[in-house]
Amino acid sequence: MSVLVGVIMGSKSDWETMKHACDMLEELGVPYEKKVVSAHRTPDLMFDYAASAAERGLKVIIAGAGGAAHLPGMVAAKTELPVIGVPVKTSTLNGLDSLLSIVQMPGGIPVATVAIGHAGATNAGLLAAQIIGAFDPELQQKVRDRRERTRQAVIESSVLE
Amino acid sequence: MSVLVGVIMGSKSDWETMKHACDMLEELGVPYEKKVVSAHRTPDLMFDYAASAAERGLKVIIAGAGGAAHLPGMVAAKTELPVIGVPVKTSTLNGLDSLLSIVQMPGGIPVATVAIGHAGATNAGLLAAQIIGAFDPELQQKVRDRRERTRQAVIESSVLE
Amino acid sequence: MSVLVGVIMGSKSDWETMKHACDMLEELGVPYEKKVVSAHRTPDLMFDYAASAAERGLKVIIAGAGGAAHLPGMVAAKTELPVIGVPVKTSTLNGLDSLLSIVQMPGGIPVATVAIGHAGATNAGLLAAQIIGAFDPELQQKVRDRRERTRQAVIESSVLE
Amino acid sequence: MSVLVGVIMGSKSDWETMKHACDMLEELGVPYEKKVVSAHRTPDLMFDYAASAAERGLKVIIAGAGGAAHLPGMVAAKTELPVIGVPVKTSTLNGLDSLLSIVQMPGGIPVATVAIGHAGATNAGLLAAQIIGAFDPELQQKVRDRRERTRQAVIESSVLE
Amino acid sequence: MSVLVGVIMGSKSDWETMKHACDMLEELGVPYEKKVVSAHRTPDLMFDYAASAAERGLKVIIAGAGGAAHLPGMVAAKTELPVIGVPVKTSTLNGLDSLLSIVQMPGGIPVATVAIGHAGATNAGLLAAQIIGAFDPELQQKVRDRRERTRQAVIESSVLE
Amino acid sequence: MSVLVGVIMGSKSDWETMKHACDMLEELGVPYEKKVVSAHRTPDLMFDYAASAAERGLKVIIAGAGGAAHLPGMVAAKTELPVIGVPVKTSTLNGLDSLLSIVQMPGGIPVATVAIGHAGATNAGLLAAQIIGAFDPELQQKVRDRRERTRQAVIESSVLE
Amino acid sequence: MSVLVGVIMGSKSDWETMKHACDMLEELGVPYEKKVVSAHRTPDLMFDYAASAAERGLKVIIAGAGGAAHLPGMVAAKTELPVIGVPVKTSTLNGLDSLLSIVQMPGGIPVATVAIGHAGATNAGLLAAQIIGAFDPELQQKVRDRRERTRQAVIESSVLE
Amino acid sequence: MSVLVGVIMGSKSDWETMKHACDMLEELGVPYEKKVVSAHRTPDLMFDYAASAAERGLKVIIAGAGGAAHLPGMVAAKTELPVIGVPVKTSTLNGLDSLLSIVQMPGGIPVATVAIGHAGATNAGLLAAQIIGAFDPELQQKVRDRRERTRQAVIESSVLE
Repeated sequence: MSVLVGVIMGSKSDWETMKHACDMLEELGVPYEKKVVSAHRTPDLMFDYAASAAERGLKVIIAGAGGAAHLPGMVAAKTELPVIGVPVKTSTLNGLDSLLSIVQMPGGIPVATVAIGHAGATNAGLLAAQIIGAFDPELQQKVRDRRERTRQAVIESSVLE
Repeated sequence: MSVLVGVIMGSKSDWETMKHACDMLEELGVPYEKKVVSAHRTPDLMFDYAASAAERGLKVIIAGAGGAAHLPGMVAAKTELPVIGVPVKTSTLNGLDSLLSIVQMPGGIPVATVAIGHAGATNAGLLAAQIIGAFDPELQQKVRDRRERTRQAVIESSVLE
Repeated sequence: MSVLVGVIMGSKSDWETMKHACDMLEELGVPYEKKVVSAHRTPDLMFDYAASAAERGLKVIIAGAGGAAHLPGMVAAKTELPVIGVPVKTSTLNGLDSLLSIVQMPGGIPVATVAIGHAGATNAGLLAAQIIGAFDPELQQKVRDRRERTRQAVIESSVLE
Repeated sequence: MSVLVGVIMGSKSDWETMKHACDMLEELGVPYEKKVVSAHRTPDLMFDYAASAAERGLKVIIAGAGGAAHLPGMVAAKTELPVIGVPVKTSTLNGLDSLLSIVQMPGGIPVATVAIGHAGATNAGLLAAQIIGAFDPELQQKVRDRRERTRQAVIESSVLE
Repeated sequence: MSVLVGVIMGSKSDWETMKHACDMLEELGVPYEKKVVSAHRTPDLMFDYAASAAERGLKVIIAGAGGAAHLPGMVAAKTELPVIGVPVKTSTLNGLDSLLSIVQMPGGIPVATVAIGHAGATNAGLLAAQIIGAFDPELQQKVRDRRERTRQAVIESSVLE
Repeated sequence: MSVLVGVIMGSKSDWETMKHACDMLEELGVPYEKKVVSAHRTPDLMFDYAASAAERGLKVIIAGAGGAAHLPGMVAAKTELPVIGVPVKTSTLNGLDSLLSIVQMPGGIPVATVAIGHAGATNAGLLAAQIIGAFDPELQQKVRDRRERTRQAVIESSVLE
Repeated sequence: MSVLVGVIMGSKSDWETMKHACDMLEELGVPYEKKVVSAHRTPDLMFDYAASAAERGLKVIIAGAGGAAHLPGMVAAKTELPVIGVPVKTSTLNGLDSLLSIVQMPGGIPVATVAIGHAGATNAGLLAAQIIGAFDPELQQKVRDRRERTRQAVIESSVLE
Repeated sequence: MSVLVGVIMGSKSDWETMKHACDMLEELGVPYEKKVVSAHRTPDLMFDYAASAAERGLKVIIAGAGGAAHLPGMVAAKTELPVIGVPVKTSTLNGLDSLLSIVQMPGGIPVATVAIGHAGATNAGLLAAQIIGAFDPELQQKVRDRRERTRQAVIESSVLE
């Protein structure tokens, strides 16, 4: 099956966070690719990646970055695909800088921002699946099944000793 | 054409912000519906709305709320559709409370969060169109055309006196 | 004696914080129950829990959650009982997100919010006892006695070497 | 009927905020008293007020203050009654200072904190009614009826033109 | 020589921070006393301490506290002596809550606030010495000498390998 | 009577804030002088002012500044007198920048920081009087009398219509 | 004389802020050009502008933007010239978002960030002049003269009535 | 070759951060000197350093400091050279205090501020090289070569296993 989701990140050190997006895509059977693409250190590569994503058949791009996190917004500026931004936690400001740099986009270029760090990356993978699932009943069913499993797990663990 | 996007908000006073989402959907010809649905004052109505959205044919839900903004996350908990959250600006904390209440979702239930206020609402409409456009070439072309018009507008206005 | 306080939390990982609420209730002899109930992963269970709490004889609900913490506010939306919200500390924003998500409720649905983390959970248990104690002289006396013991402890430890 | 709720505030200028607590108490028919009592300018008066509140028959104290807002916490230190703290919005830090000064109480002395400003004051009145209502079926029914009216009002206003 | 400075703190756990104030007073030979006095757990003791400080011959009170830090401001409300407030670092909000609770006093009751944590406590001791030194040439000379030593130490360490 | 307090500020625009310090000094009859002295635009003048203050007979310096507010800390670096810093409210960050720039001094050079803006300036004047009053019974009595008047004023205004 | 400084901004609405940079360059006689170049709406134009700046003879680029402000950092990614970033004040977060988006650049691509808003834009122009002036004695002298005039102006205005 | 860049810092403990600036200067072959110069503990030395820097042939000063970080701004007040400020991370507020104390300079005295901590120090060294490189083709080429190497490194590491 052709790749539907591109997972990119600004630096190899972001992988520890972004792998959770990939784990979720794998769990739900969504074909994806992953790559380090830096807004600041490989700007042309980033533009090429973003500009060609739609014609390469991608449906969603997930971009993670930290600090003055420009990758999600700049990728969004170069593609009509929905872009999900993952604010990576930073050692100084805990990812508040990443969050504001990603979410506060001006009117005209949206980035679908998720939570800071691990949970956000997991949700980025899930959100990509929900987006595609809105047009793919089988995938949507998988999302629904996953929820049901999660619900059961909470119920089973709800008794505290 | 059947309604594809549901635009909801926690209170009538959010309309001043959320109408920008509707304006964008109208500009791009995306059929939508709009409604006040309060997480706190009409919780059952909210759950019904969310739970039935997918089978009613919606593809995306846009939910705006301010302060302890629970509407986007709670709707997301009751639907497999992608939910876009718009943090409405508040008179006390300027919408930082709305932003954190919407974006910091736990792993398992994502909300696609956009910027605080007017620009965020505009982008919520556009993001919904980009999501649907990823599976609807005609709409994607409209998004592309709009960008081109925006680009031209910036270029024409780029000379400052 | 019938259960008077319900202690719920959004995830099993919140137990480390929330057990301090239970410890306090136990110390003061207030009958309580405890359970994991997730706003996002078990929304219907949460609504059932909240909607039936008053008729089951509960007088106060204590709800703890972290991040985009919707549990206290959503429970409050479904019960007329006083709801005490405990903001659980988060690894990214230290619980500031939890605090704002819980305390900034719109007019009409209050949540009695306490401090972030351990101290807040302890105080949630104590606040529940003070609420019930306002109508139960025996319990109020226990609260008073506990204070006196605390006061003595401070005085005894007030000399620093 | 004897007074059940004491509404106090640190300065006459807080009245614009705190009157919303009184409005709610009046709407629900909860007998209350109101007074300016300053933690910093009339500390002894404050202590007397707090220390005698329970024996005067009060069930709940609502205390509003802004900035380094010590009134709610200090009153709580001198009474076993539940104390609700209302963070008044400030001209410099918008009430974030008031919020943190009120909510971050150490273990042992809880303050039931509500939202900053107008909405918080309204909710303080409602929370007091819910606390008393947990032990007064008639008042609890009034709270329930008010909710139902609010719910209807949202539903009636839910259609946006 | 009679005690000139009272060093108090809200809890024994603040001693790790506040001992730096005492170290400085000792270094400069300023007679002081130290004690745990809690605004919330021993409010009457606190008022007695503050109200009697001036007639006991104290010239300055140093008060350290964390979280909703009411000790410095409440002591200031009960004495005409200058009160120095030390915001103790907290495990959740890093002392930002302590800082705002101490520094944002309303007009009429000042607290001389220093930095959060260790450095602040050191400076509280030094500030007390500078205040007394403004009226005691010998002590002022000691402050001056200490500065000169510090200056020399920086100069000697200014060469980096 | 010789001048005891120097009131300086970084810019003429700070006068609107700083005049409240002068008003208080005047009310209490403390002789003072006032001047614009800029850390950044007249650094040498600032150093001369600070270095000569003690021998000119000043007992306290009050310094107000906004933004990257260096005036109080740099003056403190050049005098052994106690320096009171007033964070002036800024149009962008509301004075949070001023506050942190003034209060977070390193160990060795304290600045006695008061609240942001108007209330802080008032309290700076009062704190200066309390410092001098600790060594001047007549002035201390004036401070005490002022408090009593304030207390009476609160009590008289405590009845709300 | 050939153009030495390029002043760009993300939107025409930033001009009100950025004109202060141009005013300063004009005052000091530094030849400059100005243009609207949007990172998000005209990304290719931005890259072309940045990539050709050095060979067109520019020595410094000043870039202003607000919110998720990517212009300064992305321009910096495409030029070896020093880039000065001006955080434009925003209506929601007052420019804190702009500041963090500009200043928190990862190692390898610096942006010389100045203050939020008007003062920052003024200083951006001045900083550009100081950079060029370090290699142009005549311009450096102009900077020195301007300082002297500012110093005199402060001294003349230092007497407050 | 004569020294072109002065790297100074407020305390020896800042060296762990500031050495990254020196490493970068060394890597690019820019002659520099380094020194501890404290704004608060050696104010006169700081003024002398700043005032003589230009005539000693320096082209750029890099100044790092933490907390109420006055060194960069005060050095900038005494030299016409461009000054780069590095906000050192602090144990309490993570360097947000350092950042605001450095970047929020008033109009007239700019400081070129970089990111908090390690990355900021690295970029300070690089920014100094870019400033000098704008007037030194050989150095500019070295900056360009370094970028190319970085770009290649990202591309080589872009494949994630």
